[in-house]
Amino acid sequence: MKLFKIFSLFMLLALAVNVSAQKKYVMVIHGGAGTILKKNMTPEKEATYVATLTKALQAGYAEIKAGKSSLDAVEATIHVLENDPHFNAGKGAVFTHDGRNELDAAIMDGKTLMAGAVAGVTTVKNPISAARAVMEKSEHVMMVGSGADLFAKDAGLEIVDPKYFWTKERWDGLQEAIKEDSTKAVLDLGSKKSGLLGIKNHDYKFGTVGCVALDQAGNLASGTSTGGMTNKKYGRVGDAPIIGAGTYCNNETAGISCTGWGEFYIRNVVAKTISDLMEYKGLSVAEASKMALDKVGKMGGDGGLIALDKKGNVAMPFNTEGMYRGTITADGKIEVSIYK
Amino acid sequence: MKLFKIFSLFMLLALAVNVSAQKKYVMVIHGGAGTILKKNMTPEKEATYVATLTKALQAGYAEIKAGKSSLDAVEATIHVLENDPHFNAGKGAVFTHDGRNELDAAIMDGKTLMAGAVAGVTTVKNPISAARAVMEKSEHVMMVGSGADLFAKDAGLEIVDPKYFWTKERWDGLQEAIKEDSTKAVLDLGSKKSGLLGIKNHDYKFGTVGCVALDQAGNLASGTSTGGMTNKKYGRVGDAPIIGAGTYCNNETAGISCTGWGEFYIRNVVAKTISDLMEYKGLSVAEASKMALDKVGKMGGDGGLIALDKKGNVAMPFNTEGMYRGTITADGKIEVSIYK
Repeated sequence: MKLFKIFSLFMLLALAVNVSAQKKYVMVIHGGAGTILKKNMTPEKEATYVATLTKALQAGYAEIKAGKSSLDAVEATIHVLENDPHFNAGKGAVFTHDGRNELDAAIMDGKTLMAGAVAGVTTVKNPISAARAVMEKSEHVMMVGSGADLFAKDAGLEIVDPKYFWTKERWDGLQEAIKEDSTKAVLDLGSKKSGLLGIKNHDYKFGTVGCVALDQAGNLASGTSTGGMTNKKYGRVGDAPIIGAGTYCNNETAGISCTGWGEFYIRNVVAKTISDLMEYKGLSVAEASKMALDKVGKMGGDGGLIALDKKGNVAMPFNTEGMYRGTITADGKIEVSIYK
Repeated sequence: MKLFKIFSLFMLLALAVNVSAQKKYVMVIHGGAGTILKKNMTPEKEATYVATLTKALQAGYAEIKAGKSSLDAVEATIHVLENDPHFNAGKGAVFTHDGRNELDAAIMDGKTLMAGAVAGVTTVKNPISAARAVMEKSEHVMMVGSGADLFAKDAGLEIVDPKYFWTKERWDGLQEAIKEDSTKAVLDLGSKKSGLLGIKNHDYKFGTVGCVALDQAGNLASGTSTGGMTNKKYGRVGDAPIIGAGTYCNNETAGISCTGWGEFYIRNVVAKTISDLMEYKGLSVAEASKMALDKVGKMGGDGGLIALDKKGNVAMPFNTEGMYRGTITADGKIEVSIYK
């Protein structure tokens, strides 16, 4: 009995040390998951990615430090990533099959469970702000297409000519995808496997940016923004603007933003699954995130996600070669990674 | 000890009697929840609703009896409701602010977790079939706007002139909503409460049709179809086409279709929450459905939902005055209800 007491004391002590040593994260971001290999990267390109991810974290952290809300932090952070042509969101959005840029975004407030999302906008400079406007300036949660563009304009957001989103790299990417597609895909409704209407270009699907933030008041917020899938047709919408799939946030559990093969994230309702695994099964944010991503993997999907709980615990699992990602702690320490 | 044994035996017996007495449902449908009061209904109108709900159940039941899949049953059932002008889906779709009919639908296969959804289509006679085509004839889950219309055409579905969806009742409804709205709503971004861009016409939001079916192979499928919200602006999309929110299906738990104030269903990811409460917390389909709807109610939202689990247990909770609903058992017994 005495031995047991000593052992218990020791365990408690170990736990206390562990907790105090644990870092408290206040933000986590991603810039997309996918086939990101070191061998395909130049030191200059790598430095550019690291610099933008760092700048994005700093922008959000400044908001948190100034006592602003986690929503402000998420919006400021995602603006940096949307305005950088290297990420598939905002300025760097990929092209649809028709040579257009159709952007999607969502944001959610963990305190109130308010949410906003837009899909298929073509003239909003910063889609994450359009999503926030839908949340705060309308009674709705989701708006799509030209209606969403009109709403953003009426809400006073910065509207740009669709040409703003034209970048040489993405245009070349579309031409490449079309070329590859015309070789690979067969538009034949009769046959079973190749008979799918749509385009098989899975390597182009992983660019998305996202952020989860925890403010001084202890409130979580998360947001996701994307240019979708290169060469996408038929007004395809992925998981990013779907509340529960690519984006979800709840103070009681965690804030989540996903990136990857969107269809699998929608079918698995990944972000809400993580929250429910925490709420109903008592899993940690790391365990829940891993389990949800494993479901995606088992089905044949891939990608990654970021999650942050109210205590500042972070999870950043991915089952691809790499994921642009970064964190910042309460005391301002930044960590940025790209590969496994 | 002996007493306890006798008691246990008695309990087991009671349970066995209860199980054998329990009905096995193979289909459940809804035709929308809302302010449906007996005093506003004529006997003729009531009879029309009951007749169509009965016809819809019979159409799906015929598929199941013929050994077809639950997906076939859901599609056949929803066709009947979409083709009837009394329900806010397909032919009876309500009008947007601009005098258009924009339709949304989703379908999900509980066996494979495959899913399909369309939002904002204007030329597809039966949006539930467009959702199914997205699921089966593309690699995508969701398509929106004119892209989705084009896809439906390419997939060989019946395309109609948008005029097909014009009905006098819905047109009058729009005029009424616009009149009411111009009195009530103030489009003023400056003020807080009345300053929302969008329109407050909550009484017009509840028309949606849905179905969950269980086939002879033991597979579940669920589907939802809607014309959205009368007088809606800005390309608003509700919960019906959002997998996890208004529609979800999983053989391991249940098939679910929701109807109600869509924004609250999206924010609560209602359909997936029900599935997760069953999977992770071990609740019954009735308990899980009630708990999920209570979350909506606590937030200020209202509506209803239908759910059916693999064993044929059904749940049809709603927190509105009424919900058009019906069930059919394995041996063909139909029950249809409207009020509380």
